[in-house]
Amino acid sequence: MNPELEEAKELIDQHLDEEKENSDLTPSELAQHLKTLKKHDEELFTEYLSKLDPEVLGDVAIEMPDHMLKDVIDTLPSEKIVEALEELESDDATDLLQYIEEIDEEKAKELFDGLDRENQDEILRLRSYGEDEAGAYMQTELFSAKLYEKLGDAVARLRQLKQDGELENVSQLFVINNAGVLQYAIPLEDLILFDFSKRLAENIQSTDPEHYKPHTALDSDNIKDVVSVVQDYDLSVIPVVDSKGVLLGRITTDDIHDIIQESATEQIYNLAGVDDEAEEDDTLVKAGKARAIWLSVNLMTAIFSSFIIGLFDQTIAAYVALAVLMPIVASMGGNTGTQALAVTVRRLALGEIEFKDAKSVLKREVSISFINGIIFGSVMGVIASVWFNKGLLGVVIGLSMIINLFFAGFFGTIIPLTLRRLNIDPAVGSAVILTTFTDAIGFFSFLGLAKWILI
Amino acid sequence: MNPELEEAKELIDQHLDEEKENSDLTPSELAQHLKTLKKHDEELFTEYLSKLDPEVLGDVAIEMPDHMLKDVIDTLPSEKIVEALEELESDDATDLLQYIEEIDEEKAKELFDGLDRENQDEILRLRSYGEDEAGAYMQTELFSAKLYEKLGDAVARLRQLKQDGELENVSQLFVINNAGVLQYAIPLEDLILFDFSKRLAENIQSTDPEHYKPHTALDSDNIKDVVSVVQDYDLSVIPVVDSKGVLLGRITTDDIHDIIQESATEQIYNLAGVDDEAEEDDTLVKAGKARAIWLSVNLMTAIFSSFIIGLFDQTIAAYVALAVLMPIVASMGGNTGTQALAVTVRRLALGEIEFKDAKSVLKREVSISFINGIIFGSVMGVIASVWFNKGLLGVVIGLSMIINLFFAGFFGTIIPLTLRRLNIDPAVGSAVILTTFTDAIGFFSFLGLAKWILI
Repeated sequence: MNPELEEAKELIDQHLDEEKENSDLTPSELAQHLKTLKKHDEELFTEYLSKLDPEVLGDVAIEMPDHMLKDVIDTLPSEKIVEALEELESDDATDLLQYIEEIDEEKAKELFDGLDRENQDEILRLRSYGEDEAGAYMQTELFSAKLYEKLGDAVARLRQLKQDGELENVSQLFVINNAGVLQYAIPLEDLILFDFSKRLAENIQSTDPEHYKPHTALDSDNIKDVVSVVQDYDLSVIPVVDSKGVLLGRITTDDIHDIIQESATEQIYNLAGVDDEAEEDDTLVKAGKARAIWLSVNLMTAIFSSFIIGLFDQTIAAYVALAVLMPIVASMGGNTGTQALAVTVRRLALGEIEFKDAKSVLKREVSISFINGIIFGSVMGVIASVWFNKGLLGVVIGLSMIINLFFAGFFGTIIPLTLRRLNIDPAVGSAVILTTFTDAIGFFSFLGLAKWILI
Repeated sequence: MNPELEEAKELIDQHLDEEKENSDLTPSELAQHLKTLKKHDEELFTEYLSKLDPEVLGDVAIEMPDHMLKDVIDTLPSEKIVEALEELESDDATDLLQYIEEIDEEKAKELFDGLDRENQDEILRLRSYGEDEAGAYMQTELFSAKLYEKLGDAVARLRQLKQDGELENVSQLFVINNAGVLQYAIPLEDLILFDFSKRLAENIQSTDPEHYKPHTALDSDNIKDVVSVVQDYDLSVIPVVDSKGVLLGRITTDDIHDIIQESATEQIYNLAGVDDEAEEDDTLVKAGKARAIWLSVNLMTAIFSSFIIGLFDQTIAAYVALAVLMPIVASMGGNTGTQALAVTVRRLALGEIEFKDAKSVLKREVSISFINGIIFGSVMGVIASVWFNKGLLGVVIGLSMIINLFFAGFFGTIIPLTLRRLNIDPAVGSAVILTTFTDAIGFFSFLGLAKWILI
């Protein structure tokens, strides 16, 4: 047996042997090992797939690439998948059903029909939100109690919910009024010190009620704003309410982690002209296509720069050193601009700056770029004069680098600020727009100055 | 009065008026408003600084730029700063004292001497860790109990700790043996259902003890690995132990958020040739210097590319169209390589791939780049033939683009993989190394083919 296959099989065996709750394999690790099985031995893979407990199956299925998820829906009985869906928290169940629908719409409908009414309603509600809305990220499972309920009764309900395995990661009790409107959120660390025989309202009044007024998210809020609130106030969970204040669900800290990671990935990819969602796909077609789109844009801007060079073909023909040196001016401008761009994009994303800070941010970035322009313009001026034994060539490249680095800092800052102002993600496309400017200005200033000074 | 100043003053006034605990200004917002005050009216700034409560002062001071922190230590009495340090959680107090030391070593020593013994010991311990070690990120304030203690007694202690304001964000009770070795971690959601009149050991035995075996971090673990564990197992807090298993502290979820954000910033900045720590400094000198270092490296690689172009100066002189077109080949290669680079760096950071996956990752990336090379090589070939009315020129640029994009995908993937293999951060310097290759290969293949085919 292949050693890689053997290791994967052994690890899954261990997992199946142990108490399920305590296996040290995470769902994503299990999915990884199953993938190894499938790679080497399709039958063994199907066998182990059917051995998975419904309690684990849902979490593992979420981590699977499409072609494996297809095997799950093709080989496992629908009842088992329905059970797995019901074991998941509402937000995860909604996601998994969505993935299944993308593979096999009929099957997704069949599975949905198999769910009990309550689960169906929750999934329908969660699916009604847009992908940037806080509502799409919440889970509807939570621990809540009425204001005039006895705390002991609420705790008894928590016991039942936990015994039924319907609730995990509880860190707060959400207190609502009769209309379901959220009034207070009480951390368990305070709740444990309350008098269980008294009503919640009495317990709260006897302390500092203001202290328990929660930070909330509207279900229609942008999820990125919700993440900012969670981070600014160091929250471990945030309740989600509708426009009337009615408690709908909660977003827990592990989801916040994931959102932070995903938006960082999105930023890095967007800056590089890569689409994060297309890259997740296992086939190369989607990723390649998405990358090709950005390359097309880049090709057009590169051709535009070539036109500018073409304006000076006589100058270059008369003095070939210009062709040798011109990429240096463009490259240094591109890099200087990218530095300013990365800092501005990131500071915008972290909420450290906004469009209204444009003046002070521009001042900072342009100052740095301009000073570096003077330094590197001078250095390169000396190098070029010596290399080609012509002082005026040094003056030309030095001046053009100062000009280009100055504008690189300016455009590297103003492009993302302007995109943000237009409500466009400042990371998308800004690198391509930037290099269009730095290439064009670099070639034009260098060859233009050369034509004027040298010839 | 300046409207900006007026707004800031008003907001701080509101904050000072309200119940301190419930002001909706975060420490970073307060620091921001104070900065506005300082900008317009130095005296008013000093006045408001002295109005801040020690409980808030520490959190605000952490968010301040160096020049404002200097005002704090110069104008406020040492006793007040000592009080603010004691109000902070141990990890934050250690950080703040570190910042103060960087400004005024004498003052930091004086403040440290003013702290009580317990706080001094904690700070000394936390400062003994390296900046990548988990120990440096933990707080020593936590809720723990002995195995044979009555749960009711432990909860009474929690009440006292909370009344004294010494403990926040409690989500687990850590159960230790007499030697201080961590045995179990019990989420408060389970603890609340336990029998308070029984010992912890009895309570735990009556449920599933295995369920309460915690995931732990060693104090010497790399903090990035700890973040992975927290994410993989969706933890809300992780206890930190020494090599003997003795409980030392805990890392809470808000710190994990910050670490995730910071390492994403570091990655984006490193990819762009920017130093994240230097950028935090308010003066331009540090940031400008750090950026200049990367620009120097870039200048050297750009000069290297120019040498390659210089090898073909006769060819260019004979055929100026080559100078017009050559930046397109280099630019498309650079962009294609950057796409592969960003994806590889990010997937390495997220733990999705490792060096041992090099073969499959390379296959994926090179396939995408090569296919895009064929597409864009063909497109550009046609454009160039028509533009300069010379079919062979189209063949030259088409072939060189296919070659360059193929190698762009290869180097964009292999560079970060190799850096990781050498235990160097794959984001640092990889973009500069990459463009050295894509520029050199682009110019060499294009001009070389031109010399061979055209002339």
